[in-house]
Amino acid sequence: MEPDLPSAQRVLAEQPYSVLLGTRLVAFEETSTILEIDLRERHRQQHGFAHGGVISYLVDNAITFAAGTVLGPDLVTAGISVEYVRPGVGALLRAEARVVSHSSHSAVMRCDVTAHDNHEDHDGAGRLCAVGHGRALTRPSQQPLGSVR
Amino acid sequence: MEPDLPSAQRVLAEQPYSVLLGTRLVAFEETSTILEIDLRERHRQQHGFAHGGVISYLVDNAITFAAGTVLGPDLVTAGISVEYVRPGVGALLRAEARVVSHSSHSAVMRCDVTAHDNHEDHDGAGRLCAVGHGRALTRPSQQPLGSVR
Amino acid sequence: MEPDLPSAQRVLAEQPYSVLLGTRLVAFEETSTILEIDLRERHRQQHGFAHGGVISYLVDNAITFAAGTVLGPDLVTAGISVEYVRPGVGALLRAEARVVSHSSHSAVMRCDVTAHDNHEDHDGAGRLCAVGHGRALTRPSQQPLGSVR
Amino acid sequence: MEPDLPSAQRVLAEQPYSVLLGTRLVAFEETSTILEIDLRERHRQQHGFAHGGVISYLVDNAITFAAGTVLGPDLVTAGISVEYVRPGVGALLRAEARVVSHSSHSAVMRCDVTAHDNHEDHDGAGRLCAVGHGRALTRPSQQPLGSVR
Repeated sequence: MEPDLPSAQRVLAEQPYSVLLGTRLVAFEETSTILEIDLRERHRQQHGFAHGGVISYLVDNAITFAAGTVLGPDLVTAGISVEYVRPGVGALLRAEARVVSHSSHSAVMRCDVTAHDNHEDHDGAGRLCAVGHGRALTRPSQQPLGSVR
Repeated sequence: MEPDLPSAQRVLAEQPYSVLLGTRLVAFEETSTILEIDLRERHRQQHGFAHGGVISYLVDNAITFAAGTVLGPDLVTAGISVEYVRPGVGALLRAEARVVSHSSHSAVMRCDVTAHDNHEDHDGAGRLCAVGHGRALTRPSQQPLGSVR
Repeated sequence: MEPDLPSAQRVLAEQPYSVLLGTRLVAFEETSTILEIDLRERHRQQHGFAHGGVISYLVDNAITFAAGTVLGPDLVTAGISVEYVRPGVGALLRAEARVVSHSSHSAVMRCDVTAHDNHEDHDGAGRLCAVGHGRALTRPSQQPLGSVR
Repeated sequence: MEPDLPSAQRVLAEQPYSVLLGTRLVAFEETSTILEIDLRERHRQQHGFAHGGVISYLVDNAITFAAGTVLGPDLVTAGISVEYVRPGVGALLRAEARVVSHSSHSAVMRCDVTAHDNHEDHDGAGRLCAVGHGRALTRPSQQPLGSVR
């Protein structure tokens, strides 16, 4: 299956929550995706940093899109785990997720969330805000969406 | 330290991200907090469910507010871990977090996120959407906000 | 499927690692299992406490046995997450795991690890050492054991 | 603080649990450590693979030793999160942990656990068995060991 960035960007655009946050899908390759959000007032918590919920959303969505590059689009996120290491401060947050292992029905991803001061900052100069990992599973065909007990 | 619901609701109102999501703080007692969000179109992903990022935001914010009832307001969220078990579908999502253990500088919380069909649904009849846990730490006084390397 | 304690105890006895640690399966009911280890010198780290690896082993094994009560014996542990809250000191450690949600192919469990000073200590008087959760999956029949890439 | 491999190996040797498992500390450098275990019958579960508890022990101990290279020896492991991706089969398991971020009182590490068929296998040819991360904290001086409530 050939990952297709424009198709994946259309899927992102069909997520009202991602549109609300202003998320961009900037890369979508086999085993690897990158999401970005330009930080605005609406993303913040009371100290002026990006809310931890924005960071955890980025981990959740980046690992799920990355899983989609190897499992296809019909999947569910099983879970995520995130360690926050630095406040999210800067012009934008970037979430880079990569598949570390997968089978036909399950994929495990790692994700780094970094803060950057400008958009040309592509070469690892960003500040690490959080590390995460997670798992996604294909939806079992015998079970309609939402049927887990 | 006496947890004060109106004060904590003011803190929530100072979080632009929480205002964006329409989050309500409905309980704030020693070791225990409850947040709610009325699910709207803007909270959804492409299948019509609440986005996983809304659920992880609820875990992050609920455990942090719960930590605040025992550690005070000057704290940082260290990390969270979430397992999604059921799609977030219904009129509202509720996140109930409780402190399971704490010292003067660290607290560990568990959190359940449930979906409900109406606001009177307080007696555990909701559908479990996710389980999570996490840790919060007091900010070390010798380190200004944001100084972790 | 009717959970059978003696059969599950035989499975535990077929795990050389569990025999090495001296683990006992003391309860095995639908959605719920309890493992115990009498703490000895061999379980310790350099400060005299149970090694964190004993606690994480208990979370891993307890959640997996609990998953077995609803998924059957042919399963794999997908992952675990553990927060340590108190040193493991006492006569024994007890790990109680319960299934919080499951489908036909996936189960999510929570687990508490507590320390106790004696074996009659069954009514929650133990000291909480760690909280955890995890997920187990049935092994897909089309994939032989060990075939994940 | 200059990490000292022989001193760290002495600490490992003072952990009865690590001696029981036959763990070796093969590298101990600033931000980075490597532990190894030669797989024997006693490490196995009922299918002949390394028990998940051996893998979680390796994540726990590797991340803690890695934290020690930047925080010093007086620390506690706060928590770990592990995703298992492949059964632990082979001559040995290797756990490589690296500090991804730290302050004076807290460190966050990632850890890869790989299986290898021989000891000369140092150049990444091993099979990835699990990915993990975790956090360690310095023990607060005002609190005696074991005083967390």
